[in-house]
Amino acid sequence: MEYTLGLDFGTGSVRACILDIYSGQMMATAVCPFTGGVEGTYRDPHNPLLARQSPMEYLRSLEKAVCKAVENFEREGFDVKNIIGIGVDATGSTPIPVKQNLQPLEALPAYEDNLNAYAWLWKDHTAVNEALAITQKAAATHPQYLDKCGGTYSSEWFWSKAWHCLNTDPQVFEAADSWIEQSDFIPATLAGIEDVSQVKRNICAAGHKAMYSETWGGLPGKEFLASLHPALADLRDRLYDTAYSFDETLGELSAEWAARLGIPGGIPVAVGALDAHVGAVGAGVGQGKFVKIIGTSTCDIMAFPKSKAPGDFPGVAGIVDGSVLPGHIGIEAGQAAVGDLLNWWVQHVLKKGAEYHIELTEKASQLKAGESGLLALDWNNGNRNILGDQQLSGLILGQTLASADYEIYRALIEATAFGALKIIKLLENQGIEIREIITTGGIGHKNELFMQVYADIIGYPVKRVQNPQTVAIGAAIMAAVAVKKGMEGFTDLDKVVENLSVASDKTYTPNPEAHVVYQQLFSLYNKLHDAFGQDREIKLYQVMKTLINLRNEITNNRY
Amino acid sequence: MEYTLGLDFGTGSVRACILDIYSGQMMATAVCPFTGGVEGTYRDPHNPLLARQSPMEYLRSLEKAVCKAVENFEREGFDVKNIIGIGVDATGSTPIPVKQNLQPLEALPAYEDNLNAYAWLWKDHTAVNEALAITQKAAATHPQYLDKCGGTYSSEWFWSKAWHCLNTDPQVFEAADSWIEQSDFIPATLAGIEDVSQVKRNICAAGHKAMYSETWGGLPGKEFLASLHPALADLRDRLYDTAYSFDETLGELSAEWAARLGIPGGIPVAVGALDAHVGAVGAGVGQGKFVKIIGTSTCDIMAFPKSKAPGDFPGVAGIVDGSVLPGHIGIEAGQAAVGDLLNWWVQHVLKKGAEYHIELTEKASQLKAGESGLLALDWNNGNRNILGDQQLSGLILGQTLASADYEIYRALIEATAFGALKIIKLLENQGIEIREIITTGGIGHKNELFMQVYADIIGYPVKRVQNPQTVAIGAAIMAAVAVKKGMEGFTDLDKVVENLSVASDKTYTPNPEAHVVYQQLFSLYNKLHDAFGQDREIKLYQVMKTLINLRNEITNNRY
Repeated sequence: MEYTLGLDFGTGSVRACILDIYSGQMMATAVCPFTGGVEGTYRDPHNPLLARQSPMEYLRSLEKAVCKAVENFEREGFDVKNIIGIGVDATGSTPIPVKQNLQPLEALPAYEDNLNAYAWLWKDHTAVNEALAITQKAAATHPQYLDKCGGTYSSEWFWSKAWHCLNTDPQVFEAADSWIEQSDFIPATLAGIEDVSQVKRNICAAGHKAMYSETWGGLPGKEFLASLHPALADLRDRLYDTAYSFDETLGELSAEWAARLGIPGGIPVAVGALDAHVGAVGAGVGQGKFVKIIGTSTCDIMAFPKSKAPGDFPGVAGIVDGSVLPGHIGIEAGQAAVGDLLNWWVQHVLKKGAEYHIELTEKASQLKAGESGLLALDWNNGNRNILGDQQLSGLILGQTLASADYEIYRALIEATAFGALKIIKLLENQGIEIREIITTGGIGHKNELFMQVYADIIGYPVKRVQNPQTVAIGAAIMAAVAVKKGMEGFTDLDKVVENLSVASDKTYTPNPEAHVVYQQLFSLYNKLHDAFGQDREIKLYQVMKTLINLRNEITNNRY
Repeated sequence: MEYTLGLDFGTGSVRACILDIYSGQMMATAVCPFTGGVEGTYRDPHNPLLARQSPMEYLRSLEKAVCKAVENFEREGFDVKNIIGIGVDATGSTPIPVKQNLQPLEALPAYEDNLNAYAWLWKDHTAVNEALAITQKAAATHPQYLDKCGGTYSSEWFWSKAWHCLNTDPQVFEAADSWIEQSDFIPATLAGIEDVSQVKRNICAAGHKAMYSETWGGLPGKEFLASLHPALADLRDRLYDTAYSFDETLGELSAEWAARLGIPGGIPVAVGALDAHVGAVGAGVGQGKFVKIIGTSTCDIMAFPKSKAPGDFPGVAGIVDGSVLPGHIGIEAGQAAVGDLLNWWVQHVLKKGAEYHIELTEKASQLKAGESGLLALDWNNGNRNILGDQQLSGLILGQTLASADYEIYRALIEATAFGALKIIKLLENQGIEIREIITTGGIGHKNELFMQVYADIIGYPVKRVQNPQTVAIGAAIMAAVAVKKGMEGFTDLDKVVENLSVASDKTYTPNPEAHVVYQQLFSLYNKLHDAFGQDREIKLYQVMKTLINLRNEITNNRY
């Protein structure tokens, strides 16, 4: 009997999970929510673009989650001595300014209240201007840098954030000996590494997010960085030359952390990875399998054996060798706000508790496609893929004086599904075959309406992987792959993933009648998408009228 | 000492007011809210277009309001014997199906639960298709019918509603011996008239709303109505040939109603009028004075001596001889949802009580123009003027994940102000001089932010007439004009209105800095207005980007 420990850092919590690496059975699990700021995220009431987290809270929370999981594990009569490795995934790009010894600046009294010294959470968009400048400079001098990231470098990513810190809080930038991704910081800390230059950085986060590619010798060239700002070229020297896939070992669990967590010291800690990629592993990613990880935002993940992978193509954010599965080309796309969009509506606007999602969902489930007369764009956090433009915003139209909160809720769900369909159409138009859609993440198992709307809008059966610990199980699979690399039963990675990943428990089949209506609504969505997202003239005169006519038809047929 | 009683039927309540017809002083007042359905309006949860009220509740409520006002009047030591006349205004077009004896169908047991037998409230839009057919038919055969109503016949108006009843509930249509406007039904009932054919109908409601004009001999011709439906041509015979201004007496207060109300029987009851026109009278309408009555919807009223009035022009809903002031050409424009739009947000979507308006207003007042990054269209109830199109709907854009309820609240206020500015620009472009903007109605005296936003957006000083009984005072002025017609001191109508109308108590001056920002936002509003409201191609690519840049500029300047 051998087990691995998977640790999954999401936006609002950290989950721990202990996996049987032969049967794929999950033996124990526990979760610890973040509590700093609002549900773990620190915001600036005057700057909606800012989103930071506390690296020190990451460490406190992981200890709680693991201790609880271990307690559950031992209560069932299992022995922690059989835990043979640790895998860690986290959000990203979530860079943290650190001292040379890997200590986060936040830990220093001078910076404990300075949010610029915290982790710059993936969804922090303060660096919009820097992202724009990087995109423009790269387009002019190094267009190849943009080919791997859909043509637009994002304000969510490493260089934008580091540069924005330099521009707005040079003292923090100066004080940082290096910057490290959350997905490297956690495993390196567990391994007791006390020199940031010795950390094996992960390819998932390095990939397009730090503009890393072997094609051009790692991180972007110094002369390119110097053309942005000389201090960025200097920073490059304090980062890394090589990035690794998760089948590599980063180090061994330190004695200190072994004691804190109650598991054996010295066991291998795998190189880190991003939660999206690891979630796809947990859900069984492989050729022809389009995995959607639906949480606060959405990541769409596919992986191809190198021989069968398509080339670069526009509109997809990340195409990185080895990012999803070692030895495969990983393709990553996604939407910047999905669960966040629904939470915005329920918690931020309506000021209700999380339980109100259930009430709205029940009422919204009574509606037919098109019955609300509403149509929305899912751009409250910008558009990550297709347009790759963060200078966009949300839109809702079709309101009457009778439009209700649950109708708007449904329209927001539909907007995210239309956004998802845009990405699927883009991949298919590039010749990528999609055989099945697998969804995982928090929303799928909480909201049947959400899943059915996705099936009805996309028009394919949508499989649900219900286990909410899918990502953490993916992290445990990572650990197994790293520990057992090259050993019997662990040579064919596709088979390992198929054996250990979580099985889907339900398939949502499109309702043909609803799909027909949604095809009409999708054409209206496309008009809005192109009118506000592209620099061309579009006729929108029929949008409101079509929605009203559709609503009237449905209402008349119904009563 | 002589007094008149004014009765004002609004959408949610009836107000009574007793006026000194020499000093213009209001001696007593009282209000009775409607309680049937939701705040007096019956709706169909499956058909957001439907809005009906109970004629029987009108009568019960007016009795309560008058008795209370009389009680207050007598408590101050005044004598009801000195009340010499009654004026009544009401909403419209709000037609009621009645029997020959003026009894509403609702009063018959067979129809007491049938909303089609109730009053078809002005904001009922069930007759959208009929309105469209009337507009098309008139455009083809009698274009002159459309010249007086901005080119589009509305689903809010008399013929649309009667025809929709015929199409959807022929039993009710058959059972009705005639249809009568709320603004005729109330004064005729008070005068004890028991034959609907004897009622002096008012020109305000007949005007463009029933397509009445002396130019073509009263109501539209039978051959035109027969081309819509033969039963409508038959109905014409059961309506009226002449319509009157409020300087005419409709009848005398019946003994029965004198007893119920506790005032002298036999005193003159003036011909009715619409609340919008009467509100303008109460607020001091006259040449160069643009009166905005801001309530659930908005009416914009101007009046010109016949000699100085401009001709018909497109985009304005009502141009009627004698509708606002006897002997003047009245011009009426307006917006279909203003207070309703804010109530929709607060009560229907956020599900808060009316007091939450105050909390949202306080927070929204802290924002600068452009700071929310939001922009809305005020079309949740269609667009009444400029476009004259009810097949339109609401729109909000610019949302981030941090957009708050009070920011959306402010954006909705701004949207209504942009809609108001569109109407002012249209009149000015037609050569109509506007010297001052006078506002009255419920919102103005409740919401300082609302008033300041209007001044900042319109760019003119905006005067507020604070007295919430302005419309009821206008109704009392009507009664004085009818009773004293041709007598000394009552020959010059402009002077009478100036003497007796309510003085403004506050002037809101535009903030030049805010006005500059709002000019930019108005140009974006115009883009949305034209893109969704007109059949042409518009570039919208810069809309979201401009809003974001504006927001960032303001945020950066501020902190």
